[in-house]
Amino acid sequence: MDKPLILVTNDDSIVSPGIRTLIEVMKEIGHVAVVAPDSPQSGMGHAITINNTLHLDKVLLDKDLEYEYSCSGTPVDCVKMAVHEILKRKPDLCVSGINHGSNSSINVIYSGTMSAAVEAGIEGIPAIGFSHLDYGWDTDFEPVKKYVKKIALEVLQNGLPDGIVLNVNFPKADKGEIKGMKVCRQAKAMWVEEFDKRINPQGKEYYWLTGEFINQDKGHDTDEYALENGFVSVVPVQFDLTAHHAIQTLNNWDL
Amino acid sequence: MDKPLILVTNDDSIVSPGIRTLIEVMKEIGHVAVVAPDSPQSGMGHAITINNTLHLDKVLLDKDLEYEYSCSGTPVDCVKMAVHEILKRKPDLCVSGINHGSNSSINVIYSGTMSAAVEAGIEGIPAIGFSHLDYGWDTDFEPVKKYVKKIALEVLQNGLPDGIVLNVNFPKADKGEIKGMKVCRQAKAMWVEEFDKRINPQGKEYYWLTGEFINQDKGHDTDEYALENGFVSVVPVQFDLTAHHAIQTLNNWDL
Repeated sequence: MDKPLILVTNDDSIVSPGIRTLIEVMKEIGHVAVVAPDSPQSGMGHAITINNTLHLDKVLLDKDLEYEYSCSGTPVDCVKMAVHEILKRKPDLCVSGINHGSNSSINVIYSGTMSAAVEAGIEGIPAIGFSHLDYGWDTDFEPVKKYVKKIALEVLQNGLPDGIVLNVNFPKADKGEIKGMKVCRQAKAMWVEEFDKRINPQGKEYYWLTGEFINQDKGHDTDEYALENGFVSVVPVQFDLTAHHAIQTLNNWDL
Repeated sequence: MDKPLILVTNDDSIVSPGIRTLIEVMKEIGHVAVVAPDSPQSGMGHAITINNTLHLDKVLLDKDLEYEYSCSGTPVDCVKMAVHEILKRKPDLCVSGINHGSNSSINVIYSGTMSAAVEAGIEGIPAIGFSHLDYGWDTDFEPVKKYVKKIALEVLQNGLPDGIVLNVNFPKADKGEIKGMKVCRQAKAMWVEEFDKRINPQGKEYYWLTGEFINQDKGHDTDEYALENGFVSVVPVQFDLTAHHAIQTLNNWDL
């Protein structure tokens, strides 16, 4: 069988240690094409660029790669440009990350990393987003490499159920050696925002978004529980957002 | 009973005819607070501003309003700032829109309008996103006003099931008089991108994102079908993205 074509992207930008690690692991499995943002795009969610132009630049960070491009757009733009403008055929797999910081629980919805994976899923490409709870650029990715490879190989072998992508998070190093992987549901948690209000040199107020992550979901089947206990969390994520179970309730309304 | 506090936002910016219509209708129901983007934010999805500062400006477009602010951020930022920085109590309802353009089907995932509603839902606020398939700024919103009011009143009276917000779309005017409302599921459709490649005055290539909307979902229970037939579509949207039905399949993998 021919080697699979693997599209690699992220949201921390093409020079981040996380994506370079992911490229390194994927090169052991297949032909790798990289299209990733030219600047940090964390928190961009599923944003696309429609009111501005997009730019692509050939990058030469890895001499083994035929396709390595930085893009001025969002992570979702990167996937669209890769599939519809750059690559000659549809990739067999799309991997996004490894993100520097958590995309577990409700973070999935704000995450550029996961939105890139979701966009690939919408395009019919099996896709996985990887994130590490240690957000520093000096994070040691060595212990997670074998899990990245194993999950990618499983997805290449089994495919994914229709309409599903995977959200994979790695626990913090202070949890000790990784204990294994757990398939989980997204914990019901949220951010409680606090805006850091400051005054600029011209005397005008401005704000920085900050906040505290609050998890009140005590379930043992959640991603937060798995990560807290030193496991890799694997959550199947869907992009049909319809709450099918609520349709009957609404049909009883006087609409 | 006291009049409800209603937060109004959108993604087309605070001066768009769609949000001014929504404000007008909500003033008939409750106390209205407006926090909306100071510039167009279409296609921003669930983006938040974490690598940049945020600015708020008091706006005086409507003398009836105690709270009317423009914000430099995304629609999701607007909701966060309204709830955690501006308002003294949690709103009883959040409405977003009326968007100039469709947010039916897969568009929900790219939509700043809907992401603002989802963010309010995450905060525990009943929320509705409204969108009109006619995207022109000269769209006649008169025929949709009574539906906007009716749905808002229903949500205020009944609340919404836990973890759900509503995605409401209005059909194009060329479908004739609106025939009523239908509770629907999101159609399985997608955009097939074509990038419009151009050359800038310096000789460098750049791109505009364009594309064609392809709906291969022939179901009569979809939002696309309702809209095509002159009905208002009402889709319950959830923000627990876990594909619960896929967990068992993944548990059979050798992870």
